[in-house]
Amino acid sequence: MCTATNYTAKDHYFGRNLDLEFSYHEAVTITPRNFPFPFRKAADLTTHYAMVGMTTVADGYPLYYDATNEKGLSMAGLNFPENADYKAEVAGMDNISPFEFIPWILGQFETVAQVREALEKLVLVDISFSAELPLSPLHWIISDREESLTVESVKDGLKVYDNPVGLLTNNPTFDIQLFNLNNYASVSTAQPENRFSKKLQLDTYSRGLGAVGLPGDLSSMSRFVKAVFTAENSLSGESESEAVSQFFHILGSVEQQRGCVEVGDRYEITIYSSCCNTDTGIYYYRTYENSQLTAVDLHKVDLDGDSLSTYPLVTGQQVREQN
Amino acid sequence: MCTATNYTAKDHYFGRNLDLEFSYHEAVTITPRNFPFPFRKAADLTTHYAMVGMTTVADGYPLYYDATNEKGLSMAGLNFPENADYKAEVAGMDNISPFEFIPWILGQFETVAQVREALEKLVLVDISFSAELPLSPLHWIISDREESLTVESVKDGLKVYDNPVGLLTNNPTFDIQLFNLNNYASVSTAQPENRFSKKLQLDTYSRGLGAVGLPGDLSSMSRFVKAVFTAENSLSGESESEAVSQFFHILGSVEQQRGCVEVGDRYEITIYSSCCNTDTGIYYYRTYENSQLTAVDLHKVDLDGDSLSTYPLVTGQQVREQN
Amino acid sequence: MCTATNYTAKDHYFGRNLDLEFSYHEAVTITPRNFPFPFRKAADLTTHYAMVGMTTVADGYPLYYDATNEKGLSMAGLNFPENADYKAEVAGMDNISPFEFIPWILGQFETVAQVREALEKLVLVDISFSAELPLSPLHWIISDREESLTVESVKDGLKVYDNPVGLLTNNPTFDIQLFNLNNYASVSTAQPENRFSKKLQLDTYSRGLGAVGLPGDLSSMSRFVKAVFTAENSLSGESESEAVSQFFHILGSVEQQRGCVEVGDRYEITIYSSCCNTDTGIYYYRTYENSQLTAVDLHKVDLDGDSLSTYPLVTGQQVREQN
Amino acid sequence: MCTATNYTAKDHYFGRNLDLEFSYHEAVTITPRNFPFPFRKAADLTTHYAMVGMTTVADGYPLYYDATNEKGLSMAGLNFPENADYKAEVAGMDNISPFEFIPWILGQFETVAQVREALEKLVLVDISFSAELPLSPLHWIISDREESLTVESVKDGLKVYDNPVGLLTNNPTFDIQLFNLNNYASVSTAQPENRFSKKLQLDTYSRGLGAVGLPGDLSSMSRFVKAVFTAENSLSGESESEAVSQFFHILGSVEQQRGCVEVGDRYEITIYSSCCNTDTGIYYYRTYENSQLTAVDLHKVDLDGDSLSTYPLVTGQQVREQN
Repeated sequence: MCTATNYTAKDHYFGRNLDLEFSYHEAVTITPRNFPFPFRKAADLTTHYAMVGMTTVADGYPLYYDATNEKGLSMAGLNFPENADYKAEVAGMDNISPFEFIPWILGQFETVAQVREALEKLVLVDISFSAELPLSPLHWIISDREESLTVESVKDGLKVYDNPVGLLTNNPTFDIQLFNLNNYASVSTAQPENRFSKKLQLDTYSRGLGAVGLPGDLSSMSRFVKAVFTAENSLSGESESEAVSQFFHILGSVEQQRGCVEVGDRYEITIYSSCCNTDTGIYYYRTYENSQLTAVDLHKVDLDGDSLSTYPLVTGQQVREQN
Repeated sequence: MCTATNYTAKDHYFGRNLDLEFSYHEAVTITPRNFPFPFRKAADLTTHYAMVGMTTVADGYPLYYDATNEKGLSMAGLNFPENADYKAEVAGMDNISPFEFIPWILGQFETVAQVREALEKLVLVDISFSAELPLSPLHWIISDREESLTVESVKDGLKVYDNPVGLLTNNPTFDIQLFNLNNYASVSTAQPENRFSKKLQLDTYSRGLGAVGLPGDLSSMSRFVKAVFTAENSLSGESESEAVSQFFHILGSVEQQRGCVEVGDRYEITIYSSCCNTDTGIYYYRTYENSQLTAVDLHKVDLDGDSLSTYPLVTGQQVREQN
Repeated sequence: MCTATNYTAKDHYFGRNLDLEFSYHEAVTITPRNFPFPFRKAADLTTHYAMVGMTTVADGYPLYYDATNEKGLSMAGLNFPENADYKAEVAGMDNISPFEFIPWILGQFETVAQVREALEKLVLVDISFSAELPLSPLHWIISDREESLTVESVKDGLKVYDNPVGLLTNNPTFDIQLFNLNNYASVSTAQPENRFSKKLQLDTYSRGLGAVGLPGDLSSMSRFVKAVFTAENSLSGESESEAVSQFFHILGSVEQQRGCVEVGDRYEITIYSSCCNTDTGIYYYRTYENSQLTAVDLHKVDLDGDSLSTYPLVTGQQVREQN
Repeated sequence: MCTATNYTAKDHYFGRNLDLEFSYHEAVTITPRNFPFPFRKAADLTTHYAMVGMTTVADGYPLYYDATNEKGLSMAGLNFPENADYKAEVAGMDNISPFEFIPWILGQFETVAQVREALEKLVLVDISFSAELPLSPLHWIISDREESLTVESVKDGLKVYDNPVGLLTNNPTFDIQLFNLNNYASVSTAQPENRFSKKLQLDTYSRGLGAVGLPGDLSSMSRFVKAVFTAENSLSGESESEAVSQFFHILGSVEQQRGCVEVGDRYEITIYSSCCNTDTGIYYYRTYENSQLTAVDLHKVDLDGDSLSTYPLVTGQQVREQN
C-alpha cells in the first residue's frame, strides 16, 4: 500500500512510497500562487502558497498524492480502506472533500501548529471529484521540520493524532500502529547481549542479530515497524547527496517488489518513491523501473504564475555507460 | 554482511550486495584472456576466459569479490566468519588460495557441472595474498543459468552443496540456512485464508498479510529467508530494463541502511549492489549513495588483450534535473 | 498477569489463571442467597442468586476474583493497569464500585443479554473497599453458555464489547487485542502446505509446523493469541473428566512459570487456575504447587442460608503413591 | 512429539513429555537387579543396576521410553523421524539395538562420563524387537546430575553431543537445535529497556514483554527454544513439593493440547509427563487427563529380585472434593 516518512539532516526531507497494482499517469506538478483552487463547499483560494508534488491531473485540476509548499509544510494521503469514513456537510464548519484536502492545507498554512488549529473546524465531506473518480479511502500525514500530525476521518469523527515518529503507512488506525511499537522495545541496532540465559553461552554469529524480531513482510503494520526502526536509527552526512540517499534507503526498506504482494491476478509494487527537500523545494523521485533520481525544482518556475507546470515521470532504467 | 543472488528473465543475471562498514577502493575490472594469472601452488593460467566483476586491485592483481566470465559462469565470495577454515597444502590436489579461487574457476570453466567435477580435487589453502592483505573468511556461490553451487571450506573439509535457491548470505553453514526455510512454508504472497479458527471471523485489513512471519532484521539468517522469498516470487517483463530493475529490487529487499547495523562505533551499509547480465557480459552496479545504475560492458574492451581495464566506482547521487 | 476463558463440551465451563507475584490468602467462597450484600451507592441486595468463586474475604465481605452464580452466569476481573479509569458518581445511574461489580451482576442476572441491558446504566465509581484495600485497575469478562462480554471503564467512559472468543487477558484494550488476531490468520493446527515458493521443495520435518508464528512469551497480547488459538481449536470428549482436563490444558498453555516473568526482585506465577462447571456449579481449582484438582460444589451447602462458606486453598503437591 | 528435560534444586530431576496421537498401554516398570536382560548381538546382562521408568512391556520385556537407574543415571528416547539411521552389525563393536539401548546403558553405568567412553564402541543396529514392533526413529538424552549427552545415529554415523541445556525435543539434529538458540539472545525474563529508538517513548504495558519473540507453536524447534528458556530461568524452593511442581511447570510450558496438532484425522497430545527424582528413585507422572501426580518408588520393591514390577497408569481426573 504506502509509506510516508520524514528525515532531517541539515535540511528537512519529506516523501513517500506509492504502492499500487496499477498506475494513474502520475506526474510531478508545480502549482504556482495564482492558480485558482476552487472548492466545492468552501471559499475558493485564488492566491495561495505555491506547492510541488505528485499528482494525477484531471480536467486541469491537480489531484495531489503528496506535496510540499513553499514554506516547507508537507502532506501526503495514504490508503486507509475500511476505516476512512467521510461525512455529510456540516453548516458552520470547513467542509472540504478529501481530494481538496492537500491544496486547502498547503495553500494556506506554514506550520503544523497552524494546521492543528484549523483542523478543529474541519469536516472531510463525502463529495467525489467526478463520477469517474470516486473518493479513495485515505488518511494523511502533515509535517513541518519540527513535528507531524496524522489525520483520520473515521466512524467516530475526525481524529487528529500527534505523530511522534513522523511516519505513516496504512491500516489499522494510527493509535494501534503506535501502540504496536511497544512490542519491539528489545529490537536494537546493536549486537545483543545474552539475556536468554545466565548459564548458556550464545554466539553472535552474524552482525545485525540485535534486530531479530523485526518484521519483514509487506503488510501495513509490519512496514510501519520496519520503517520506523530504520528511520529512527538512520544516520547520514549533511550533504544533499548523503541525506537524500539516506531518505531513499529508508523508503527502500519497505518497498514492494513485483511478485511479492498478490492482488487478485496483479501485483502491488512501489510505483514511485519521492523525497522533497522542504527547505529548498526540490522534489526528487524514482520509479519502480528507474532507480536514478529525477528532480523537479519548485523555484525554477515563476511562482507568481497561474498555470500548472507538469512533468511526466521519467521511467525505464537510465543507465550510465562507463565504457 | 552480504547477499548474492540469481534471477532469470529472458537473460540470466547474477549479482550481490556487499555490506561492510568500510570501503576498499572497489573498482570494476575486466580481465582479458591473456592477462597472466599466477597461482601460488598451481600452474599459472596464461590464457583463460575473460571476466568482469568487482575488485580491489592490489599490486596489479585483481582481487575479485564477484565476477562473471565470457561464458556466463559467475561466482561471488561472501563473508563466512568463524566457519571458514583454510587448509594446509595437500600433494596431488589443486591447492588454491581463497584469493585465487574466483580467477581459477572463472578462468577455466563454462558450467557449474564442470566446476562440480573440478572441486573434487580442490583444497583451499591458507596462503595470504600479502602480509597486509590477510585472507578473509569466505564461502562462495558459483552459478550458471541452470544451477548454483555453494562451496564452504570448514573444519570438516570442503563442502560442496547444490544451491537450489541460487542465493547466499553468510553464517551459519549453508545446510542450516536451507533447512531453516522449512519454518516458513506458510509464508505467502497471497492473502491468507483464515486457518486460525473455524469459528472466528478475521479481517484481511491490509494487503501483504500472507507473508506475516517473514523476518525483517538484517542478520544473515533473516536476510537469507527474506531474499529467497523475494527472489522465488519475483516477476518481471523480459526487457533488460525490467529484468535488471527487478534484480536490484531483490537485492534492495535486504540492503543495509546506515545506522541500522552497529559494528563497534561504525555502521555496516550496502557499499555496492551489482548485477551482471551473464548472457551479454554487461555488469551493472549502484552504490550506497548513487542509486543510478552504471554499466561496464565486458565486450567493449579487447578481450584478447593482456592488461586489466579498471573502472573506479561512480559514487554520489547522479540526479537528473527535469526542470 | 491473568487469563480467563470459556469452554463448552456437553456442559459449559468458565475459569481463569490468576498470575501474580504474591498471594492474598485466596479461598473459594460460596455466597448463599440471603447473605446481605451492601452497596456503597446502590440499594443493598438482601436476597440474590447464590454464587461460588475465588475470593479474598475482608471484614466478612467476599471480594470475588471470579465467580459463577446458580444460573450459570460467570464473571471474572482481570488486571488492566494504566487503562482502567473509574469515575465519579453520576446521579440517576447505577453507581457500583469495581469491588462490588461481580456480586452486583451475579446477584441479579441470569444471562449476558440481561447484563448487556443493565450495563447501559452502569457507572464504575472510584470508591475503595477500605484504605488498606485500594481499587485494582481491572476489566471484566462476563459469560453464559451462549456468549461473552468484556467491560472496560476507560478515560472515554464505559466500553462494553461483545467477546466472540470468550477469552480475556490484560492490556491493551479489548478492541486492539481482537484486532491483533487478524495477524495470525495463517497459523494453523494442520501441517503447512508450501506457500513460500512454487519451485522449492520444503520438508515438514516436525508435527505442529502449521502454527509457526504463534507467540510463546507471557505478555498479555501474546497470551491472548496463544490462548485463543488453543481454545478455538480445543477438542475433548463430553465426560466431566475429559472436558475439565481440556479446560485446564487451555489455561496451561499460557500459565506462568516461576522465574520467567520478573517483577522487580520477585516473579509472577500462576497462583491458581480455576474451572467452574456452570451447569452443575462445581468449582475446580489447582494451585501453582498442587496440580491435583480440588472441587467445591455450590449445591452442597444450603443456598438459602445467609452466611459465607469459605474453603482455604489446598496447596502443596497431593501425590498419590502407587507402590 | 516429545520433550525431555533436567532440573536441579536440592535434588536432581529428570523427565519428559510423551506426545503422540495414540497410546501404547504405557506402564511404569521397575526392573530389579537380577532380571535377565538378553541382547541380540551383545552379551546378556544377568545382573545390573535396577531402574524405574515408563515402558510398554512386550513378551515380558520392558521397552523403556525413559528411565532412571539406582545410581541416578537417566535416559530417554525421543522421536527423530527422517534423521535416525540405524546400521548393520560391525564386528568388534558393541552392537545394540535401539530398543535395547536404555537397559544396556542404565544397566551398566553410573555417570555420563562413563557413558561417553562406552559410546565410542557403540553401533546402533537395525534390529527390530519383533515383526509387530518395528524400530522407532529415535535419538536419546542421557543425564546425570552434572551433565547431559545427546546421542544420534544418523547417515554419517553415531553423533555424541554434549548437551549444555540438558533438554531434548525432536528434529532437526541437535547441533542445529543448539545453534538456533543464538537467535534468541535478546529474549529475557526482565522487562525490556527501550533499545528500539533513542527518541521514541515506549510503554511497558504488560509484564513479560522482555520475552516477546519466544515461539509458542508446538513444532520441535519452537518447543526446544521455549522449554530451554523456561528451564534455564526456572526457580523453586528446595522442597520436594516445590521442585517437583516446578519440573512439571517446565514440561507444561510445551505440552500439547488436544486439537492443536493435527496428525491426519487424529491429534497429538501429551500422553504423559514424568519426573524422576534421580536421588531418591521416586518416579512421578501425570497423564493428559489426570493432573494429579502419581508416584512409584524404586526402593519400595526388592531390588535384588528378578521379576518386573509393573504399574498401569492412573488415568482420569482424580478430583479431591473439598465439601
